Amino acid sequence: MKYKRSERLVFMTQYLVSHPNELIPLTYFVDQFNQAKSSISEDIRIIKHVFEDDGIGTIRTTAGAGGGITYHPEISTERAKEIVADFKEVLETNDRLLPGGYLYMSDIMGNPSLMNDIGELIATMYKDEEIDAVVTIATKGISLANAVARKLNAPVAIIRKDNKVTEGSTVSVNYVSGSTRKIETMVLSKRTLKEGSSVLVVDDFLRAGGSISGVMNLMEEFSAKIVGVSVLVEAKEVANRKFKDYTSLLKVSDIDEYNQSFVVEEGNCIQYIESNN
Amino acid sequence: MKYKRSERLVFMTQYLVSHPNELIPLTYFVDQFNQAKSSISEDIRIIKHVFEDDGIGTIRTTAGAGGGITYHPEISTERAKEIVADFKEVLETNDRLLPGGYLYMSDIMGNPSLMNDIGELIATMYKDEEIDAVVTIATKGISLANAVARKLNAPVAIIRKDNKVTEGSTVSVNYVSGSTRKIETMVLSKRTLKEGSSVLVVDDFLRAGGSISGVMNLMEEFSAKIVGVSVLVEAKEVANRKFKDYTSLLKVSDIDEYNQSFVVEEGNCIQYIESNN
Repeated sequence: MKYKRSERLVFMTQYLVSHPNELIPLTYFVDQFNQAKSSISEDIRIIKHVFEDDGIGTIRTTAGAGGGITYHPEISTERAKEIVADFKEVLETNDRLLPGGYLYMSDIMGNPSLMNDIGELIATMYKDEEIDAVVTIATKGISLANAVARKLNAPVAIIRKDNKVTEGSTVSVNYVSGSTRKIETMVLSKRTLKEGSSVLVVDDFLRAGGSISGVMNLMEEFSAKIVGVSVLVEAKEVANRKFKDYTSLLKVSDIDEYNQSFVVEEGNCIQYIESNN
Repeated sequence: MKYKRSERLVFMTQYLVSHPNELIPLTYFVDQFNQAKSSISEDIRIIKHVFEDDGIGTIRTTAGAGGGITYHPEISTERAKEIVADFKEVLETNDRLLPGGYLYMSDIMGNPSLMNDIGELIATMYKDEEIDAVVTIATKGISLANAVARKLNAPVAIIRKDNKVTEGSTVSVNYVSGSTRKIETMVLSKRTLKEGSSVLVVDDFLRAGGSISGVMNLMEEFSAKIVGVSVLVEAKEVANRKFKDYTSLLKVSDIDEYNQSFVVEEGNCIQYIESNN
């Protein structure tokens, strides 16, 4: 079967979008379409041009025997602003405030289309970092970690608060929960994360930062390097957070349980993207 | 800016692939490209043709005022076989057997590219069902549920074994764990799942089926209709499983802890796809 250029473009675009951050040998498409390399290169030039002009991502070409092309999702600042605005609108909806001033966010974490968009945003923020794994804490962070890891094409390592028989041997650390001041334990399966990995830590909510500090200690046990910490929402009015270097999509403050109200502002993620461009 | 057909095809393809199971009004593309509806329709015809010929999915057109096009991921049986074979190869690797005859699978659940493929496979199996939510049990099932839900464009509802302050009011049921015979509790936040939803239940591993039976009881409390149960791996030699109607990608048997060996076979998922076509 002979493919026309239009058909090749459709196939190649869907293939690239389905394989983010994965090196695809040019020969894969050459064989698929039984076409000269020069035609395939011209197809890629067209795709690259649309992806870059429309803020979808970049396509990088690696030359040589082991070479090929890689699609890196990388959204425009404009698109990032839209995503943050959409997320803000969802977070601001009524009835989200729970007893104790906690925010109900399970609907957000369970919204695959929103998670996908946010995954692209966070992947864009850390696009210039080498990331070997995305690390998160069970249960709430998992959906976010999956979304980010999918775009980075990196494995997910899930830290648990209990020790399960299905994890094999584990490393654990104790930490002080910043909100409750209780001592808790977190556990990571040894084989989930290679020694010396570069990791991106993501989580749903940042309050006092006790659990993220725990993650940092646990990462030391794995000789891992933390290249970034990114959270969906941070509580704004926290005086003594244990670390300063993180990104957030949104900030909440003035939580008033009695009147069921709170204030949502943009976090530093847009600033972070702008300063990296 | 004027887009050529080739450029429109690239943009539209990536947009459709990024918005599975979402109705996109034709006017979205008409406005985006400032083009006549007839040109856009011709573009869609080309994309549809490639998607269907290459086992990527179908594109359905809905006529009328609220109409548009929807991309349904739907892989070919051939592709489904490849995915199962890839998964089998990964599961068969050494050192997966843990004390007690458990299988280490965290690397599999944490592999976003494999999860994405498996998500497409499971979405293909249940393509003709109306699915309002994908339900799973924390922690292990979450990554699978996310991958399936992304393709179905449905929300994820996560059942937990503990009651968290961030979940709001919950419904809980007790169940007997089939393997350990212990009585355990599972909990679902009330607002995570609408009353009367049609749900697809997914999980990583099916042993005696105690937890899936628990999920079934919990779904009754939500007046939910279970349209399917799908697991990555089932233990083959279980005599009295509490339910029969489920799909699996792989079956394991002859687990021999002493010799660190076990046998992996294909589950019934390919059969299921073939009988539905």
